[in-house]
Amino acid sequence: MDTFQPLASAAESACCTPSGRPALGAAEAQARARVLKALSDPNRLRLLSIVKAGDGGEACVCDLTEPLDLGQPTVSHHLKILVDAGLLHREKRGTWAYYSLVPGALEAAAVSVTTL
Amino acid sequence: MDTFQPLASAAESACCTPSGRPALGAAEAQARARVLKALSDPNRLRLLSIVKAGDGGEACVCDLTEPLDLGQPTVSHHLKILVDAGLLHREKRGTWAYYSLVPGALEAAAVSVTTL
Repeated sequence: MDTFQPLASAAESACCTPSGRPALGAAEAQARARVLKALSDPNRLRLLSIVKAGDGGEACVCDLTEPLDLGQPTVSHHLKILVDAGLLHREKRGTWAYYSLVPGALEAAAVSVTTL
Repeated sequence: MDTFQPLASAAESACCTPSGRPALGAAEAQARARVLKALSDPNRLRLLSIVKAGDGGEACVCDLTEPLDLGQPTVSHHLKILVDAGLLHREKRGTWAYYSLVPGALEAAAVSVTTL
């Protein structure tokens, strides 16, 4: 078990103050964590992978259940999370919905990890 | 609500088969999701940020409670998750534990997102 001692604040504690720039702010951390949370599920990563590999960078929802052996409600749930996080774009065309990656979204998520 | 139809398999369905490489495998997706899950919490992102900005790229555990206004058990819980995910290294020196980033771990997590 680690032991702790009270500190006045990181800025006032000369002995231990990190010398770099300030730690990530709370609001920015929340925003980054939200996208990373959408990415933190193996089925959602696989859905993104299928969409990314699809013809023209998109995939019909009709192609997304069989490869993952998931039911329709589960796939729809995961897709909604990915859309809400700004990672996938959804377009209804005729009977089917088609999903594509939001341009730059995965790259932005990656940068959010390397620029902490 | 999207409508679905049964497919023989993605590989056999000529009309809808993604032309790219196969979707991310289940085991690889699980491994990537595990690290991303560790990153998907705002307090853990802030802890990593403080460690990264620390003198010599490390931070004493005694510096990690005050900036986030979290209790010791909560901070210890988050740090354990980050260590277990291979993102942080922990070294006990004297009274305190010191944490540093595992070299290349954040970059690897970023690549795991952009190479789906």
